[in-house]
Amino acid sequence: MNAVPTTILSAIITVLAVLMLFYTSVPVGRARGKHGIKAPAMTGHEDLERAVRVHMNTLEQFAIFIPLLWVATMYFTLIGWLVPALGLVWIVGRFIYMQAYLADPAKRSTGFTITILASAGLLVLSVIGVVMALLAVTAA
Amino acid sequence: MNAVPTTILSAIITVLAVLMLFYTSVPVGRARGKHGIKAPAMTGHEDLERAVRVHMNTLEQFAIFIPLLWVATMYFTLIGWLVPALGLVWIVGRFIYMQAYLADPAKRSTGFTITILASAGLLVLSVIGVVMALLAVTAA
Amino acid sequence: MNAVPTTILSAIITVLAVLMLFYTSVPVGRARGKHGIKAPAMTGHEDLERAVRVHMNTLEQFAIFIPLLWVATMYFTLIGWLVPALGLVWIVGRFIYMQAYLADPAKRSTGFTITILASAGLLVLSVIGVVMALLAVTAA
Repeated sequence: MNAVPTTILSAIITVLAVLMLFYTSVPVGRARGKHGIKAPAMTGHEDLERAVRVHMNTLEQFAIFIPLLWVATMYFTLIGWLVPALGLVWIVGRFIYMQAYLADPAKRSTGFTITILASAGLLVLSVIGVVMALLAVTAA
Repeated sequence: MNAVPTTILSAIITVLAVLMLFYTSVPVGRARGKHGIKAPAMTGHEDLERAVRVHMNTLEQFAIFIPLLWVATMYFTLIGWLVPALGLVWIVGRFIYMQAYLADPAKRSTGFTITILASAGLLVLSVIGVVMALLAVTAA
Repeated sequence: MNAVPTTILSAIITVLAVLMLFYTSVPVGRARGKHGIKAPAMTGHEDLERAVRVHMNTLEQFAIFIPLLWVATMYFTLIGWLVPALGLVWIVGRFIYMQAYLADPAKRSTGFTITILASAGLLVLSVIGVVMALLAVTAA
């Protein structure tokens, strides 16, 4: 039995993060139905507005996360499992964020901070990886 | 003449999907001009609100679609053309969604469902592909 | 000393574009705090609405930019530095857009146009690259 390549683990994280992003869109439709707010309206009840914000904020964070995940996967090869592990932290952070925000927007900061720290970690690994790749090329 | 690699076909689908995403942003500016609604306002006329929703929903679906398209392209190698073919279905679904929603938001479900089914298909192919890659590595 | 591969330069551009996208989210929180507008509200003061629009428009443009950057990086190999150079133009365009929009939404067109031209350039390089790859495969 061999070690699983980082690319496969990052592909699994990508699929799970996509499912998480989709999952945050479910309460939007539910709130729309529950309170009888027809599209294209995006306001009209606090439940809908919270659900919309959870979904949009997750989309905003997803756009930061996925490119960093793959730059780090391609270039940070020192500790292979660290990149997908940070990806798992991101997904867990988003789940906590979603549950807390829907219950009370004032409690959204813990999950948000976990997400941001995971992305910041991937940023650091991406920079280290790219700098090492640059040094390897220019020193050759 | 050789078979065209899936990566080239998926690159073509990516370019077409980007053009589709851009295309959904055009009615936003048009509605803004027609009804004299200056930025940063995003409400003020039903036409603008419909156009904004078509654009944002396409962005939300695009963020799900592109990662799944490329995970499936990288790992699902059993039937090469199936991945870009589902990508084409996604683009057609978005076109139908856009036309229907701008005419009447209540008619948006057909195009939306086609989009979701295409992404669900890519999700299934991604999972099959990743599981096969995992088995190939761990069994080796 | 060797030439730096385009993939490394595009990875650097990706990291910088992610940082730019994150940077456009900072004024949203600042406006929220300054004017005491609690989440999930997205309106209530022109400053917040401008900041939200700058962030969302950058997200919309980012979703177009990143896929084109990487399709062009993978397939347009004639002039390697041209792809990341257009990426740098995109980032500069977004910076100009952000500064101008926050000061006065009517002045947003210069930065927006620079962004769009950079993405249009990447679209052209992507199409050239993919067509050349198709010709190379089918002619073989």
